Amino acid sequence: MNPLYDIFSLKESFKLESGSVILDPEIAYETFGTLNKDGSNAILVCHALTGNSHVTQSNTNTNTGWWDDIVGPNKAINTNEYFVICSNILGSCKGSTGPTHNNPKTKKPYGLEFPIITIGDMVQIQKELIDYLGIKKLHAVVGPSMGGMQALHWAIKFPDRLEKCVVIASSASLSAQALAFGTIGRNAIISDKQFQDGAYDENNKPKRGLGIARMIGHVTYLSKESITQKFGRKLQTKESYGYNLDQEFQVESYLKHQGDKFVDRFDANAYLYLSKALSYFDLEKEYGSLHDAFKHVQARLLFMSISSDWLYSTEQSKNMVRVCMNLNKDVSFCDIESDYGHDAFLIEHEKFSPIIQSFLESNHD
Amino acid sequence: MNPLYDIFSLKESFKLESGSVILDPEIAYETFGTLNKDGSNAILVCHALTGNSHVTQSNTNTNTGWWDDIVGPNKAINTNEYFVICSNILGSCKGSTGPTHNNPKTKKPYGLEFPIITIGDMVQIQKELIDYLGIKKLHAVVGPSMGGMQALHWAIKFPDRLEKCVVIASSASLSAQALAFGTIGRNAIISDKQFQDGAYDENNKPKRGLGIARMIGHVTYLSKESITQKFGRKLQTKESYGYNLDQEFQVESYLKHQGDKFVDRFDANAYLYLSKALSYFDLEKEYGSLHDAFKHVQARLLFMSISSDWLYSTEQSKNMVRVCMNLNKDVSFCDIESDYGHDAFLIEHEKFSPIIQSFLESNHD
Repeated sequence: MNPLYDIFSLKESFKLESGSVILDPEIAYETFGTLNKDGSNAILVCHALTGNSHVTQSNTNTNTGWWDDIVGPNKAINTNEYFVICSNILGSCKGSTGPTHNNPKTKKPYGLEFPIITIGDMVQIQKELIDYLGIKKLHAVVGPSMGGMQALHWAIKFPDRLEKCVVIASSASLSAQALAFGTIGRNAIISDKQFQDGAYDENNKPKRGLGIARMIGHVTYLSKESITQKFGRKLQTKESYGYNLDQEFQVESYLKHQGDKFVDRFDANAYLYLSKALSYFDLEKEYGSLHDAFKHVQARLLFMSISSDWLYSTEQSKNMVRVCMNLNKDVSFCDIESDYGHDAFLIEHEKFSPIIQSFLESNHD
Repeated sequence: MNPLYDIFSLKESFKLESGSVILDPEIAYETFGTLNKDGSNAILVCHALTGNSHVTQSNTNTNTGWWDDIVGPNKAINTNEYFVICSNILGSCKGSTGPTHNNPKTKKPYGLEFPIITIGDMVQIQKELIDYLGIKKLHAVVGPSMGGMQALHWAIKFPDRLEKCVVIASSASLSAQALAFGTIGRNAIISDKQFQDGAYDENNKPKRGLGIARMIGHVTYLSKESITQKFGRKLQTKESYGYNLDQEFQVESYLKHQGDKFVDRFDANAYLYLSKALSYFDLEKEYGSLHDAFKHVQARLLFMSISSDWLYSTEQSKNMVRVCMNLNKDVSFCDIESDYGHDAFLIEHEKFSPIIQSFLESNHD
């Protein structure tokens, strides 16, 4: 079997923001398109919480990618024109080093021995990957949701390493409400009896807790409008109630199905670490203020929010845009009118594509 | 020890909407104030999901009631003037027959042998209680949240048995989003390994699942504004992150505490049954349309919604008001401007009191 992704091995200790160290971390990544001679056409796409490096189909992996509608030949992020890189984030379970990987010291899976990682750590090792690929300056870093936080961190931390930055349905920090849903999900996992302090074995995973966490996440990704339009109060199979505790409404069986499917494709420990990294991300806390966070940014910025997104609200994007405007940064902003909630960036590609495309192709010089 | 409530025993089979039967059901209730000679000053207060009959302090039970600020001597629902009745709903675990009670047939707790109950069933047995108390016509039925659904059912099902009906922060049915949060909570309980198909014993209860269900509920009772104002991203004890998986944000420890506290005071099976009853309530489904549901209502109606309530939205109240207006019913409506979300009816009593009071005291005749 061909590997579905390439591996970048750092082959040294990688120091984290917490002060902890990961020995010889590996990052799974895929590339699409061709790097041009002067290395100026590279775009790094950063994935969301449970994503992976497979942003779009390729010759080596023809499976559907998570952003096929946006990335690919003649798409908004045109792989005929750009060299697209997408890497699985540090701490995840899709090829990159995370809690499912063996701890070199013990030769056993890290589990909860894995150190806490941050968005900054994810970006730091992405930067090592970009160095390794010989790219001096990225044409752009693009990311939705948690990927948007990575894009923000790139623009702030490595201002001379990217021309453009696209931040979609993201924020400078989670709201208190988003923190709340995150902690409930983590509690559901940790309180699952099969969690076993993260040392569960493959055949006895904390599926229930992880399923609940996913169901909670899923509801927050849908808007009130979209969940009503999609399901309303429709029953599954019949007109009348069954008078039992079964899942009878379509929205119930849909969510249960989403939870059940998820536990087969994602690791509970990895979910905990990534969710925690989300909750830690806070540009104001890190830099003292958004003004101080953004003041050294050189990249041209595009912020896109979604009108019905209540997890990462339009207001949260506007707060960043306002600061960038006051700092006289080169900033664009578009609130996408959509009923789909946070998930709109995966659904209504036709609303996002022209804006992303024209931003990537525009040239002010 | 004095009993904290009175018991009304039906002493016959009680037929449910599902067609099932409960043998000899009992209803725990408390009364406050004195019934006048012509029996015209009785007000039935209906409690919300996890409430009980103790709506306010009394001589026999001086513990704080769940609506002390609204019900009591010289309060909006003035117990010097009105005879207030509050009964624990059928299916609950605060004295009324529910899954924690012994099944007369097996002499063991019902657990999941308990039949599914509906809001209609709760109201039907409340009506038996009101008959038993010798009250021909209630001055009013008042209820917030799930209590509002009971009040609605009273006005629709027994139009000549109440003068007035006060429906607070409620709706003619749960929205798809509210259904979703409900089903996730029930899934968390049912998937708890200690749930044991509802046959858990007292020392080994499904605390984790019930705690998660409560945490989810709690977030939906708070508005985005209030959770931000109350907690924001404040850390518990220190300025810097601990870089571990602990609850570090105040909102995290608060929710965890709410979950932990709840499992000591509420039964997991009862929670399942009441949550299911909420999900079944649907006046449109039951009567074909809201128009047909409300057309025989005789009571004067007061609807109150809460501007920041996203669980039972203002729009849902307005939908009912609109129908009642078209039917030329005697209907009043007030959207309470509040940042507190659904919980506002328990917090901002000063905004609710004058309106409830004047509605109860007003006389059109």
